[in-house]
Amino acid sequence: MLADKYSAVRSRTEALCTPLTPEDTVPQFVDFASPPKWHLAHTTWFFEEMILGKYLPGYRVFDPHFGALFNSYYLAIGSPYARNQRGVITRPGLEEVMAYRRHVDHHMATLIEELPEQAAELVTLGINHEQQHQELLITDLKIAFAQNPMYPVYDQGFDEGFAANSTGSEWLKLKAGEYQIGASGQGFCFDNETKQHAVLLPEYEIASQLTTIGEYLEFVESGGYQQFEYWLDEGWSWVQHNQVSAPMYWHREDTQWQHFTLAGLQPLPLDSPVCHLSYYEANAYAAWRELRLPTEFEWEAAAPMLNWGQRWEWTASSYQPYPGFAIGAGAVGEYNGKFMVNQMVLRGASVATAPGHSRASYRNFFHPQHQWQYTGIRLAK
Amino acid sequence: MLADKYSAVRSRTEALCTPLTPEDTVPQFVDFASPPKWHLAHTTWFFEEMILGKYLPGYRVFDPHFGALFNSYYLAIGSPYARNQRGVITRPGLEEVMAYRRHVDHHMATLIEELPEQAAELVTLGINHEQQHQELLITDLKIAFAQNPMYPVYDQGFDEGFAANSTGSEWLKLKAGEYQIGASGQGFCFDNETKQHAVLLPEYEIASQLTTIGEYLEFVESGGYQQFEYWLDEGWSWVQHNQVSAPMYWHREDTQWQHFTLAGLQPLPLDSPVCHLSYYEANAYAAWRELRLPTEFEWEAAAPMLNWGQRWEWTASSYQPYPGFAIGAGAVGEYNGKFMVNQMVLRGASVATAPGHSRASYRNFFHPQHQWQYTGIRLAK
Amino acid sequence: MLADKYSAVRSRTEALCTPLTPEDTVPQFVDFASPPKWHLAHTTWFFEEMILGKYLPGYRVFDPHFGALFNSYYLAIGSPYARNQRGVITRPGLEEVMAYRRHVDHHMATLIEELPEQAAELVTLGINHEQQHQELLITDLKIAFAQNPMYPVYDQGFDEGFAANSTGSEWLKLKAGEYQIGASGQGFCFDNETKQHAVLLPEYEIASQLTTIGEYLEFVESGGYQQFEYWLDEGWSWVQHNQVSAPMYWHREDTQWQHFTLAGLQPLPLDSPVCHLSYYEANAYAAWRELRLPTEFEWEAAAPMLNWGQRWEWTASSYQPYPGFAIGAGAVGEYNGKFMVNQMVLRGASVATAPGHSRASYRNFFHPQHQWQYTGIRLAK
Amino acid sequence: MLADKYSAVRSRTEALCTPLTPEDTVPQFVDFASPPKWHLAHTTWFFEEMILGKYLPGYRVFDPHFGALFNSYYLAIGSPYARNQRGVITRPGLEEVMAYRRHVDHHMATLIEELPEQAAELVTLGINHEQQHQELLITDLKIAFAQNPMYPVYDQGFDEGFAANSTGSEWLKLKAGEYQIGASGQGFCFDNETKQHAVLLPEYEIASQLTTIGEYLEFVESGGYQQFEYWLDEGWSWVQHNQVSAPMYWHREDTQWQHFTLAGLQPLPLDSPVCHLSYYEANAYAAWRELRLPTEFEWEAAAPMLNWGQRWEWTASSYQPYPGFAIGAGAVGEYNGKFMVNQMVLRGASVATAPGHSRASYRNFFHPQHQWQYTGIRLAK
Repeated sequence: MLADKYSAVRSRTEALCTPLTPEDTVPQFVDFASPPKWHLAHTTWFFEEMILGKYLPGYRVFDPHFGALFNSYYLAIGSPYARNQRGVITRPGLEEVMAYRRHVDHHMATLIEELPEQAAELVTLGINHEQQHQELLITDLKIAFAQNPMYPVYDQGFDEGFAANSTGSEWLKLKAGEYQIGASGQGFCFDNETKQHAVLLPEYEIASQLTTIGEYLEFVESGGYQQFEYWLDEGWSWVQHNQVSAPMYWHREDTQWQHFTLAGLQPLPLDSPVCHLSYYEANAYAAWRELRLPTEFEWEAAAPMLNWGQRWEWTASSYQPYPGFAIGAGAVGEYNGKFMVNQMVLRGASVATAPGHSRASYRNFFHPQHQWQYTGIRLAK
Repeated sequence: MLADKYSAVRSRTEALCTPLTPEDTVPQFVDFASPPKWHLAHTTWFFEEMILGKYLPGYRVFDPHFGALFNSYYLAIGSPYARNQRGVITRPGLEEVMAYRRHVDHHMATLIEELPEQAAELVTLGINHEQQHQELLITDLKIAFAQNPMYPVYDQGFDEGFAANSTGSEWLKLKAGEYQIGASGQGFCFDNETKQHAVLLPEYEIASQLTTIGEYLEFVESGGYQQFEYWLDEGWSWVQHNQVSAPMYWHREDTQWQHFTLAGLQPLPLDSPVCHLSYYEANAYAAWRELRLPTEFEWEAAAPMLNWGQRWEWTASSYQPYPGFAIGAGAVGEYNGKFMVNQMVLRGASVATAPGHSRASYRNFFHPQHQWQYTGIRLAK
Repeated sequence: MLADKYSAVRSRTEALCTPLTPEDTVPQFVDFASPPKWHLAHTTWFFEEMILGKYLPGYRVFDPHFGALFNSYYLAIGSPYARNQRGVITRPGLEEVMAYRRHVDHHMATLIEELPEQAAELVTLGINHEQQHQELLITDLKIAFAQNPMYPVYDQGFDEGFAANSTGSEWLKLKAGEYQIGASGQGFCFDNETKQHAVLLPEYEIASQLTTIGEYLEFVESGGYQQFEYWLDEGWSWVQHNQVSAPMYWHREDTQWQHFTLAGLQPLPLDSPVCHLSYYEANAYAAWRELRLPTEFEWEAAAPMLNWGQRWEWTASSYQPYPGFAIGAGAVGEYNGKFMVNQMVLRGASVATAPGHSRASYRNFFHPQHQWQYTGIRLAK
Repeated sequence: MLADKYSAVRSRTEALCTPLTPEDTVPQFVDFASPPKWHLAHTTWFFEEMILGKYLPGYRVFDPHFGALFNSYYLAIGSPYARNQRGVITRPGLEEVMAYRRHVDHHMATLIEELPEQAAELVTLGINHEQQHQELLITDLKIAFAQNPMYPVYDQGFDEGFAANSTGSEWLKLKAGEYQIGASGQGFCFDNETKQHAVLLPEYEIASQLTTIGEYLEFVESGGYQQFEYWLDEGWSWVQHNQVSAPMYWHREDTQWQHFTLAGLQPLPLDSPVCHLSYYEANAYAAWRELRLPTEFEWEAAAPMLNWGQRWEWTASSYQPYPGFAIGAGAVGEYNGKFMVNQMVLRGASVATAPGHSRASYRNFFHPQHQWQYTGIRLAK
């Protein structure tokens, strides 16, 4: 059962890489995005380091250099290779990384069903960790491909939600009162979703649908990126400093808008949910509409009524611990808690989220300037 | 009555500048700190722009260039002079800026008691605004003086709380339940303190006293700045990148610790509240003690029982709007709301806060890396 | 005689500061330009450090902190205060710096005529050093004043050469052959002007007059700053990165050109020698004219026939030592030799050069991007 | 004959890539070093753009995107792809780039012997251009491989001159007088080697051998990187800012020195010529020995007596045009002249220089801080 889950997730990572050449797996465009080859290896290193090294007697690591190379940020485990220099590592190559995966999978297979409960929980964590990296693998590839003036095609059939329809939003009204927020304790969750606790919410309304590209285009074409009054102070600096004038991946040729997708350059699909926005843009758009973004608590309380799952939805909540949250001991404790500053919470899930990896209590988080995830907007008032 | 308040606050700003030479009033050390001369003029410009220009028929501005030069960030009013180049402006000199103050005060005096209510509220806002700049004037001067290897003395008698005693802290226990948070509506408050609303708090404990220099020194000397596990990820980067090894203004000569004060270089007073810390340091210290910082709600609920007012206290809350908060129209609306991202809330007040300017609902805010304010630590659990 | 020279130069420095307020003497706009107050003190420190401290028995320094504060870059003498933070030093103030000058002048007066020859040479070096700083004092003040949107006036009568006439240039033809280059040994010179040596020059022609503003304006208006083919590769990057479109201090309002001068904003005087250009601009202009800049040797060989002294003239020569040049021992050896990389030689003198400080063998040098000196163009072919 | 030369050089480029995996051909570590795949394509683009497109009627470019992607800096031909983002381009992949080479070679083969003389000269230029990129391919690969903590081996047998012996240097004395400098007109040369002209040299002495690793190690171990007095001012800043303490690729573990080579990590061979130094280091070393670097003219005059060819030798000459030098028209004119500022001339050749590509009049040039070429030291006095 755990073995099946493990095996399915591991296979899916590799399936996502099928359209890639060895060259595609190397580059890193920016420090916050990693090469496909690194994702393939890092997720594997997690199982080697956290499970095999501790629970399989006599296990010998595949290559002693891989620890430093493929550790991401766990300072409790040696000294990770520089986060912004991953794209210069050509060896091990793709083939050797795949051999590394097979080596670790082989040993995991013999071990996985006999693990003590604590270790089994770590395996489940490793599986969820790999699912997170599946999403990053896609978004990180997209930002790298987007730099190529030849606009390479990853997969003509990859669904980015640009065929979806997000029109006809309605206002859903929720009553003031106490709502239970956080993971209920059924099934896996990350530590940042606990402890479940009550929050008081005022009466509020929330949109049933995500904002569409067509709706956002009105903001763009009305001069929204040239008017400071809709923007947070840092957002306005970000717009000016980076000369931002539209969401990431949009291109205007003459009067015609297109956007870069994993199927190449395409016309903007007006009825689909808008995508690849920073928090600054989401917030400015809401201000321009004289509305606002929901808090993460408002989102979670309304979740059962919302059409969600296409875009990670920026909320008005910054990423802080829930009451009673405590950072775990050792490397696993570095997973979530140490990022709790200067980031905003995103709720929902996206087209790139692994199947079975989403739930209403899930708390994703990114810095407010980041656009390269499949991020979108849901309005509230 | 309003005239008295106005006059008292205006005089106090000038009194704070008494120990300064004309040269002292010019420099700007970093973009987030402004020259004394700029503070003197900017607070004056606020009254000229918001009151005299609108409510005094036939008023002629003192100098038409001053609008751009002494506007801080109100984009609704022309194009402010670059925030990080204020230190290069030598003209108008100190004397002319003082003449500008007298000019505006003279016209305000004839007008102030006849103002319509809305304008009177703006005057009150201007008074509170000037009080905020009184605090900044002190902190900005301190960071500039601190660069001078001669360690200039501003005022031997200026109280920075280094004679205060903060030992003997006790744990105050508060019950779980609903607490009213935000300004009650009695007296002046800023828009960010509204609307008053109920929050649910869990049972918690909070220290009656601020952390002392002696207590913090234990963290420093135990190697706290060399151990990643106490730090947020961004905090650890900040420590490494800036080679931080102690609070701002501390100097170690051989084994002896001193700190720069407005009365020159002094030995560290171990029993006084620790000061000039970033949020990263406050948070790391709490983690090292296996405790935490209070949220801003926990702080406000406990405020009546706390010994506060010496240091701005970093809370675990990021700066977000209260439910129902709406940004006001025009320039005054730019006062608070547009800064609500990537900043942490500080509660309390400091030794540099103007008399009569503090209250339990007050929400101060700074970026987590900033140390140059009189910031301190109160623990919770 | 030496005493007279000393006294005249010292007085002239102070006379240059007469139009300044105490505030004016503080700021530093960029790291390569220093505050007037610093120039006043640094030139004084040179005499205190190099002469009084060594040759006046029992001399006590005016203030022991001044050594670090007012040393510029002599690493052989302690650890200089950071070059780019001079503008934050408000104390000593102007008055105390003037007292420092009087203190040093007083002691120099008693000593100067009794000095051994080597020390007298050092005094002469100090006098020439102070003359160099007189020029910098003017150029550094100009760049600071230019940031002020009020365009302050330093001195209505200060001659910047904008009333001069540079039209009617003729081509002077020089024969191929050996020319003696370098200081002849008569009178003071800097070490970088030695040893005198012969160089072989080809036949060449050189313009008798400097390029005028009107001539340069043709380049600007013909789109010269938008056409890469006239620019060195680094020059083109510099243009693009800094969005340069005209010489420093030029302003276009609608179709009208003006320029900032020490007498405030003025119309462009078309017949005067063009000024405040980088080497990149000088070189691009020459390329656009299908001509070139002279080498420093060509300049020196032709000097007796040229109308020079209004602008420092960029040459095509980089700053390298003459054959047999050796860096002197100790601090004085740091004067010139250590800057012999990545700089271009300028020949001639400018309107801001101290009287009596120019000669045909003089080698000035700046980085190719610098514009804030009184730099100009003379063409050759 | 030209066809044979063409074919030999093209084959050698590919032979240099034999040890590389597809992944190895992708990354770019710094903006001044390019990926192997880019070198393979850029050298091919040169022939397509300069020859086939102009002289082969009806020729169709292999792929119209390649023009922008593989143009390096020729602004006369469209808009080159960003110089510092070459490592993110994964498509075309290695295989397609090799197909591009075959396509261009095929068309060149049919055309090459029938070309008019001007075009044949361009082919010769293209051949020499490709030889230059062969050297860069090696040095750029080395800097990328050096970042990998696994120290990959490119080729155990690749000769980097670390088996060579450079001991037993003698002083060669040259007489003062006129020497002819520059290309004689026999055989190919670059435009920057012309026109040949006479220069006057003083009497001087020059070392017959290159400085060895052992000799340079004495400088390192005597504290040379900690003593400002040997360094140019910019060199000292470079040392401090980058915390340089030895030549590039040297590693000290405990007391043991090793260096990274294309055959992996190796002990330092003390008798071999020192390598991978900046001009700042070469100049500081010479100053420490109380000697100097030769000028490029001194080098060329002595060349017939020197043992040269192992290292590019930093000279004391900056890169300026020879008398009468004029930049050619069109793209080819951008080859050399536009880099004539802020660079130093290196003479000789290195172990990575293509066979048949060196001559005594050859002028190589790099910025003074660069270390990644096979650079070395020859002393003069």
